[in-house]
Amino acid sequence: MKYSLKPVYSALDKHNLDAVAFVPGSNFRRLFGRDFHLMERPLVIIIPARGEPVAIVPNLEMASFSLIGFKGEVFDWRDEDGYESAFQSAAAAMPQLRGVVKIGLEAQRMRVFEQMALAKAFPSAEFTDAHAIISSTRLIKTEDEIAKLKRAIEISEAALEATLQEVKEGQSEKQIEAILLKQLFAHGADGLSFDPIVAAGDNSAQPHASARHDYRIKKGDALLIDFGASWQGYNADITRTFFIGEVSDFDRAFYDSVLAANERGKQVARSGVTAHQVDDAVQIVLENSQFSEFRRHKTGHGLGLDVHEAPQIMRSNTQILEPGMVFTIEPGLYRTGECGVRIEDDVVVTENGIECLTGFPRQLRIIG
Amino acid sequence: MKYSLKPVYSALDKHNLDAVAFVPGSNFRRLFGRDFHLMERPLVIIIPARGEPVAIVPNLEMASFSLIGFKGEVFDWRDEDGYESAFQSAAAAMPQLRGVVKIGLEAQRMRVFEQMALAKAFPSAEFTDAHAIISSTRLIKTEDEIAKLKRAIEISEAALEATLQEVKEGQSEKQIEAILLKQLFAHGADGLSFDPIVAAGDNSAQPHASARHDYRIKKGDALLIDFGASWQGYNADITRTFFIGEVSDFDRAFYDSVLAANERGKQVARSGVTAHQVDDAVQIVLENSQFSEFRRHKTGHGLGLDVHEAPQIMRSNTQILEPGMVFTIEPGLYRTGECGVRIEDDVVVTENGIECLTGFPRQLRIIG
Repeated sequence: MKYSLKPVYSALDKHNLDAVAFVPGSNFRRLFGRDFHLMERPLVIIIPARGEPVAIVPNLEMASFSLIGFKGEVFDWRDEDGYESAFQSAAAAMPQLRGVVKIGLEAQRMRVFEQMALAKAFPSAEFTDAHAIISSTRLIKTEDEIAKLKRAIEISEAALEATLQEVKEGQSEKQIEAILLKQLFAHGADGLSFDPIVAAGDNSAQPHASARHDYRIKKGDALLIDFGASWQGYNADITRTFFIGEVSDFDRAFYDSVLAANERGKQVARSGVTAHQVDDAVQIVLENSQFSEFRRHKTGHGLGLDVHEAPQIMRSNTQILEPGMVFTIEPGLYRTGECGVRIEDDVVVTENGIECLTGFPRQLRIIG
Repeated sequence: MKYSLKPVYSALDKHNLDAVAFVPGSNFRRLFGRDFHLMERPLVIIIPARGEPVAIVPNLEMASFSLIGFKGEVFDWRDEDGYESAFQSAAAAMPQLRGVVKIGLEAQRMRVFEQMALAKAFPSAEFTDAHAIISSTRLIKTEDEIAKLKRAIEISEAALEATLQEVKEGQSEKQIEAILLKQLFAHGADGLSFDPIVAAGDNSAQPHASARHDYRIKKGDALLIDFGASWQGYNADITRTFFIGEVSDFDRAFYDSVLAANERGKQVARSGVTAHQVDDAVQIVLENSQFSEFRRHKTGHGLGLDVHEAPQIMRSNTQILEPGMVFTIEPGLYRTGECGVRIEDDVVVTENGIECLTGFPRQLRIIG
């Protein structure tokens, strides 16, 4: 394997950092071409602005680690010895980081105990949140990445259609979740983007509900399904909301307000507009509906190796959209205790607008 | 829902802490009976030794959060406003934490950006790693927890047997992984304990290998499968190593050394002995074999709501085993570039020894 640290060095330079530290995860995978489990055994790579990188690696990962072709010194440690001396040796190998230096961290990924080990090894260093800086190298997706996302979405949508064929009034949310999981893997998922949300009736009004064993879906219920297959590391993220057996006129109007907001987002999103502008346009549709009070969240988030990554599609985010950026458009409305609707698509910015990667029909559908 | 903070208050008192902070995860779930996604939106509960707890909650989680019946002040925040002022308001509501205080964190779970938000809100506080203290409330499993683990293991073992029926020479590791995933969910898994490891031939010698698309399993290969279903939050973790078509006398001796170590671990583990003693006994079997140089890791780790939790079964851990503790016994040997073998069982300490929760046969088995 070969990797290039160029994007890291230019980020270090641009943001005046003396070093950045990586832990396993999406940034690590994108940079080094492989990933590792993030577990109780710290694995940290430190890339200084000047001088060779160093790595701190659990001994049992050394064979896997050798596959990345790391250029720099490696300090491995064994379970019986603990990791502290490996951090000390790594620090000793980087005299340029001995004084008052600024070290950037993936603060939304790295855990506190890893930072504590770094702080002990580099006692004069100032640690800053460089998550956005480090992740920005993943903002623009390559064609290969888009192809993998499309495959993940294709698997997800086929699994959803197969699931709906098995849904019947009287089933529990947990039963429907089990059918969905079975279908995702039968259709070729590598893994799950996240634990699916399968929520009916009042539970659909909780944006991140947990499926229940003891609630049976009944006529008139909304059934909200938010889920995704992952494929070769890339994550689909799709939400559709169905109704069981029948739908009231009120719920139909509620649904159509969300659908209008979803469509508005896809009209507005294009190269050159800001993330703020997309969210603003979507929120205005919801605010101008009769259901404004039932808004709960922003329009969406970036999607790729992470399920939630940049760009956040939210008011106040001045990030300008560029071709190759991938994100969700997922407006929702939630009448607590009654009914929630969310309609989520995954889109990629193109030269002339967006391409919607998700194709599953969005018109209100009655099932079961 | 009702929850009790008694175990938290006694930990605060015993370790002289002024407060502890929780984020979503296993400790949160055990304490409050529910869990939340750990995402880019911080959700933190702070429990001070004196005075009422407070919670910082993303607005979109408020409906779910209300289900835990939280007794204390809640500061919710919306995507468009950001979370900083919620942290400031939470700090203002806890004047007893204004000065030089000691706040314990779940340092293996909480991420750096959450700690940075706390540090800004409590500028005079000293933050310490209280992960072991906070997690210790989960060390002894209840009967209900053991029953859930047993169900997760039952699902896993049935899925493994069904998978082996479909394994054939010439398949790729990825194909076998896909069969395993399909079978896990067909047999009732709620989720995956972790991304399974399916590694053959030279790849089996990497303790945490990734399945390959481009390697076809062939006669004489080891096939190492490390996997687990989760069920109602509880995680199975099982490893078995098979051979394809045939096995050399050398590899059989290699396998039998690991099996002897596995059996030794289960003989030694019992109430009153230390985690050190179990690992020591297992390592001595490996060290006294002709394969001592191929050891890579400790004997095992605790298992429950987390896949890796206390007690770590390793030399230097003086933790005394008690009835109700659950952990893995998973010795392995790894000849880099050639062949790896690991045999992993899940056991619970009882009044008179241990009960082995995993029943899948351990004798060398030739498949495909």
